[in-house]
Amino acid sequence: MAELLAELVRIPSIGGSAAEAQIQDRLATWLRAEGLEVDHWPIPLNQVTAETDFPGMEVARSQAWGLVGRLPGTGGGPSLMLNCHVDVVPAGDSSAWSDDPFSGRINGDLLYGRGACDMKGGLVASLFAMRALRRRQLRGDVLIACVPGEEDGGMGTYALLKRGWRADACVIPEPTGLDVVPANAGSLTFRLRIRGRAAHAARRYDGVSAIEKFLPLFAALRALERRRNTSVDTLMERWDLPYAIEIGTVHAGDWSSTVPGVLVAEGRIGVALGEPEQAARRTLEQTVANVCASDEWLRRHPVEVEWWGGRFASGRLPAADGDLLNRLTEAHATVTGATPAVWGAPYGSDLRLLTGLGRVPTVQYGPGDIARMHTPDECVALSEVATTTRTLIALALSHCRGWN
Amino acid sequence: MAELLAELVRIPSIGGSAAEAQIQDRLATWLRAEGLEVDHWPIPLNQVTAETDFPGMEVARSQAWGLVGRLPGTGGGPSLMLNCHVDVVPAGDSSAWSDDPFSGRINGDLLYGRGACDMKGGLVASLFAMRALRRRQLRGDVLIACVPGEEDGGMGTYALLKRGWRADACVIPEPTGLDVVPANAGSLTFRLRIRGRAAHAARRYDGVSAIEKFLPLFAALRALERRRNTSVDTLMERWDLPYAIEIGTVHAGDWSSTVPGVLVAEGRIGVALGEPEQAARRTLEQTVANVCASDEWLRRHPVEVEWWGGRFASGRLPAADGDLLNRLTEAHATVTGATPAVWGAPYGSDLRLLTGLGRVPTVQYGPGDIARMHTPDECVALSEVATTTRTLIALALSHCRGWN
Repeated sequence: MAELLAELVRIPSIGGSAAEAQIQDRLATWLRAEGLEVDHWPIPLNQVTAETDFPGMEVARSQAWGLVGRLPGTGGGPSLMLNCHVDVVPAGDSSAWSDDPFSGRINGDLLYGRGACDMKGGLVASLFAMRALRRRQLRGDVLIACVPGEEDGGMGTYALLKRGWRADACVIPEPTGLDVVPANAGSLTFRLRIRGRAAHAARRYDGVSAIEKFLPLFAALRALERRRNTSVDTLMERWDLPYAIEIGTVHAGDWSSTVPGVLVAEGRIGVALGEPEQAARRTLEQTVANVCASDEWLRRHPVEVEWWGGRFASGRLPAADGDLLNRLTEAHATVTGATPAVWGAPYGSDLRLLTGLGRVPTVQYGPGDIARMHTPDECVALSEVATTTRTLIALALSHCRGWN
Repeated sequence: MAELLAELVRIPSIGGSAAEAQIQDRLATWLRAEGLEVDHWPIPLNQVTAETDFPGMEVARSQAWGLVGRLPGTGGGPSLMLNCHVDVVPAGDSSAWSDDPFSGRINGDLLYGRGACDMKGGLVASLFAMRALRRRQLRGDVLIACVPGEEDGGMGTYALLKRGWRADACVIPEPTGLDVVPANAGSLTFRLRIRGRAAHAARRYDGVSAIEKFLPLFAALRALERRRNTSVDTLMERWDLPYAIEIGTVHAGDWSSTVPGVLVAEGRIGVALGEPEQAARRTLEQTVANVCASDEWLRRHPVEVEWWGGRFASGRLPAADGDLLNRLTEAHATVTGATPAVWGAPYGSDLRLLTGLGRVPTVQYGPGDIARMHTPDECVALSEVATTTRTLIALALSHCRGWN
């Protein structure tokens, strides 16, 4: 198990890279070798990205591949999907890592590398659950869906659903620290374009620094974030800041001695449980407009707000689908002897596509601490990966009405 | 004259581009056609950049060409150099321009385009002065030096001096609005590297935003700038801010939904007249260190300050070389009937290399408003270009002891 996880971590399947397709090849081979029925198809990118409800994509892709492995049931039982994204975010500043970001190095119980936690640990847990379930007899199908493009919007799960794949229940083994997560905050990606006026830096008073004009915007977004996090849904109460607003990238200027004439900032705003996407957009746009209104220059050169890339609505397992929650809780208790905590996650995931567009009851449950996601020295505990496998097996046996 | 200027503006001779060499070819052809002796040589970049007093270079270059046109005197008179840089800064945000940044478009008396003011206007004024002076008899040589790499440090003039070119006096027709400029503030280019800690933006409290950590630095640099501009040399008193500190570029983060782990900012600090470079460096380093000392995170992850690229010391025509100042003032008065203002410029230029390393008495005098340098819709008044030509002719006749 550790060996396969290390191998998969060493495939740097950053969204939009060639390795994002390469890892699907590797997984298709693995699934075929396990005797599963495999659907491995080129996603028609032009077609899916043109749909009005397409959830967005932030990186350029010339290709993308869908992949489903199916373990057919004997019939008459509900089906279960394990939904795992195979893409990872970039490693960032590699000098902040203790080792090669894609090392797959193991130290005691921990396996390191970008994607180890988010979410190749959960992927490998699912693969080993599939392997184990082949030896059981289940009435319902068990599917493993390996999807690209989750980090930048959910293109892979969207394409999966468009291809017609469904199940009666779904688990996404994203890192939850083995808690049960039936809801996600959403997140919308925005771009701010702030204009200054370029000038020779020696005469900076003749220009207007776009960086200087960015500062009050940054402060206003921090203040907006505080307001949006004062009173939150019970499922979210464990988080200091369930609905974070963050500026992830800033690029300004093109010469060290020229007053920067343009600043482009990209960021994300968290969407509250139950909050329509449009309401979250409006609140940010209004905040930007207020900053512009209070500045002489920005009044005449208003900041442009663009919504692009990932559109993660918030998502929640409908109350009517409590059966999945109960069975998963029970499966976890059977395996570990403990009752898992239940909470909502502060990050967007494919859960909202599955519960929304797909109408598939979905929860997250997987190995790894979400504090390790997207960080240097990202890692996952191998013991949690193994526990996840056992819980997923127990859930499948229960949900798909299997017997030993 | 306007035609040649438009043609030269249309060659986008941005520092480090192929056009920076191409414009030298064009000028060499022009100088040869005028019957001047031409020295057009490949600058040995590996050699000059390795010298300890090399003034720096901010862009990558695989080639660079020096160019001098010489109008030999009849002998026995002092020589005069007209020193013109041919490189321009990038156009920046082209949407901020009313037209193609390299259009060379003429509207009334104004010719537009990147480099029109800084300093192809002065270059063309010099070329036409050379043309006119061919028909006069001068005792001393008149040289026109066309240099690359001025904007990013002064590589071209450095190489010119290393090749042995000297003169008894020099005018740099940088834009001075036809005033006489015998001194320059300097400018040193720095890079700040600020480390945060990357994390998934949904859990931004687990990370540290490098952008957030940049904010107090930016404020401290503004405060330092205020302190350094409270009491300045008389030559500099006309400027609100003779010794500007500006951040020209900022790049942070690599994903909209990841807390940015690194921010790199590049900027410049003005060096006061008479201030050693090292003193200016120290004051900035101390300011950065103070900010770091007052922040828990930055104390443990101090901001790195790197001095790179252009090293413009401040420069000043020595008081003993007042003869050039007087003759130029007189030449301008003869041509225009008015006495030119005399002041120090807030930007670095090749003047400090010529007066320093070269020991060549040098002043700046040229067409164009320095407020138009490095801005969108940069332009120069053709009437000022023509006046500059006439003044340079009068100066050469006076300085090189010529007669009509």
